[in-house]
Amino acid sequence: MLQHCLRTLVRLVSTRGAQMPADKARCRLCVKLVGGGTVLYQFSLFGFGSSRKPDVESADSWMAEPITNLQYLKENKHDMKCRMEAMIMRIQAEFCHALEKEEQEEGGKKFIVDKWEREQGGGGITCVLQDGTVFEKAGVNISVVSGLLPPSAVQQMRASPGLLPSGVWKFVRSTHELCSKTGVSSVIHPKNPHIPTVHFNYRYFEVEGSDGEKQWWFGGGTDLTPNYLEEEDVTHFHRALKKACDCHDKTLYPKYKKWCDDYFFVQHRNERRGVGGIFFDDLDEPSQDKCFDFVTSCAESVVPSYVPLVQKHKKETYSYKERQWQLLRRGRYVEFNLIYDRGTKFGLYTPGARFESILMSLPLYARWEYMHAPAPGSKEARLQEVLRNPREWI
Amino acid sequence: MLQHCLRTLVRLVSTRGAQMPADKARCRLCVKLVGGGTVLYQFSLFGFGSSRKPDVESADSWMAEPITNLQYLKENKHDMKCRMEAMIMRIQAEFCHALEKEEQEEGGKKFIVDKWEREQGGGGITCVLQDGTVFEKAGVNISVVSGLLPPSAVQQMRASPGLLPSGVWKFVRSTHELCSKTGVSSVIHPKNPHIPTVHFNYRYFEVEGSDGEKQWWFGGGTDLTPNYLEEEDVTHFHRALKKACDCHDKTLYPKYKKWCDDYFFVQHRNERRGVGGIFFDDLDEPSQDKCFDFVTSCAESVVPSYVPLVQKHKKETYSYKERQWQLLRRGRYVEFNLIYDRGTKFGLYTPGARFESILMSLPLYARWEYMHAPAPGSKEARLQEVLRNPREWI
Repeated sequence: MLQHCLRTLVRLVSTRGAQMPADKARCRLCVKLVGGGTVLYQFSLFGFGSSRKPDVESADSWMAEPITNLQYLKENKHDMKCRMEAMIMRIQAEFCHALEKEEQEEGGKKFIVDKWEREQGGGGITCVLQDGTVFEKAGVNISVVSGLLPPSAVQQMRASPGLLPSGVWKFVRSTHELCSKTGVSSVIHPKNPHIPTVHFNYRYFEVEGSDGEKQWWFGGGTDLTPNYLEEEDVTHFHRALKKACDCHDKTLYPKYKKWCDDYFFVQHRNERRGVGGIFFDDLDEPSQDKCFDFVTSCAESVVPSYVPLVQKHKKETYSYKERQWQLLRRGRYVEFNLIYDRGTKFGLYTPGARFESILMSLPLYARWEYMHAPAPGSKEARLQEVLRNPREWI
Repeated sequence: MLQHCLRTLVRLVSTRGAQMPADKARCRLCVKLVGGGTVLYQFSLFGFGSSRKPDVESADSWMAEPITNLQYLKENKHDMKCRMEAMIMRIQAEFCHALEKEEQEEGGKKFIVDKWEREQGGGGITCVLQDGTVFEKAGVNISVVSGLLPPSAVQQMRASPGLLPSGVWKFVRSTHELCSKTGVSSVIHPKNPHIPTVHFNYRYFEVEGSDGEKQWWFGGGTDLTPNYLEEEDVTHFHRALKKACDCHDKTLYPKYKKWCDDYFFVQHRNERRGVGGIFFDDLDEPSQDKCFDFVTSCAESVVPSYVPLVQKHKKETYSYKERQWQLLRRGRYVEFNLIYDRGTKFGLYTPGARFESILMSLPLYARWEYMHAPAPGSKEARLQEVLRNPREWI
């Protein structure tokens, strides 16, 4: 029945949105359905809001003027860098507005918007909501960076640096590299310890080697870091991501779920940062269009995967002890980001990088206690157990 | 007059302590004089307490049994690894007792003592005083680590990895390395924002290359991280370190003061972690004995350089705003330790390392605020100015 319904909807969409390939439309549809019944943002199930239009046509709702001239983006909407920039501008706006809505009900704050330029090329738009009622620190950042990068930064760009074209490596060893990165990244640290922290990051790279060979690839992921294990929440979250993946290829979610567990591993503590999600890198097949559609689906699944958890827990009371445990978990978050995260390293090693935008991922407060160990059988120990032994959630 | 007095004292010491070379006695004397009038711990100016005796004879006052069997340390008191272990055991105890005395007056806590063993060889003694009245988190750690180390750890061992014997590098590239490290390290985060944070670390390495070539060297340093600039405090601190250096060679302090400013540089923020002190590495001349005497002087200068600052400020009142600024500065401290510090990396890359002892350097609480900038002309801005432009203090 659901399948029949889906097919009908896809046909409807296909006839209405000629600019959108059928598989893309189908995929976006799936994502919308994930949050069905729980989350209804500005999209209606049949209207699809901006989704059917090229992303650049949603420019009126963006948080700021894009980094690249809007007219240029419109005129080059088949160029992948331009498509990616328009998509992440839309995602940034949709996510910020969804979070502001949660904050607003509590009389809270709005995002401040900082547009910045990078002397060496490109720039970004950093949206931060700090010390709100619901969100202690929420950052949603897009950046469009281009120019010559030093080897230290290039080495952080791919999961498998060996995959870079040979010409790149010749060049990397002697001098800088001509690259571009277009991406969105976000970390949300809520105040209430019962609301998990979420992180997502979707990015598109282009690199040109000294021999003129060009390469492009996508990377990204979304992952959840709760302070307490609520199995229902984690299952909801993973289900949303799985649906976004399944629309494209049913083998993707299991692969990227495992990659996520492996990537967000805090080696010295022998535990994961959180309960995972999806993570991928070096994505350059089956085609540039299909990769982009997949990444778009993933980025669109952030709101329906996460915002219901905010709504569910934001009015819950919490104790001093729960707050202290949250701060300890935030200390672990800082450890991962500063010691292991390739994204942070890529950022800090990029000359002229805006470190404030990179480090906005750090929480407002964190705590480190010598030899802290949760009491056996406690709620805290239950979380730690799952961080040490990742589970299948679906 | 002072010089004459010094000479007389040195003669007195020399006739009483036959086992101690005259230059060492002289040096220790200088160090004691640094704190003259301000600090009187368990040493009396003429008695010298344990200083005249070999360090191993102070074993009764140590925080725990040493890592190496005490009898072995006594029987091998001319072996540098044993001498170093005895010295750091004494330094650990003297520093912990001095801090406990400050805490005790306020009815505060005592250090907890954790002795731990490393499966792959060696171990350590971690002393931590957490959530005290004066000290929010104080850690004083000694470790004696030996065995095979992976290349990632070996690369963090020296300031100039090129200085390792060629045999080592041949070996390092293919497999692990036979090394030993004997060292003391400490970070003290007081509660009151007017008391600076202090850090010191003194270490002795031995490495044996695959060709049988052996190398040894010392490294270390002491540095101060205030939240507010009190020029008198900084001058007192630097003067104590300078005296410890000057006893050995007047060229050392300026050289190591600059090295310290260079080492504790938080590149992405273009500021130093604090107001410096001394830092050195790869020290292997003029002789092993003289290097050891110098390192001993430096380690002994920690108490007189720092404890007077605790005494001076511990009863001062402070505001919420000052506390928040202190937490922000602690966030910067975490950034340096997790992103740049070679000692932390060496620790975390050492298999079987006890990460709790390495990360005890992190504060109990830290804060990160997006785009925080102190108001121009404020006390906070005065500190930032000196972190950006290090000064000469003497």
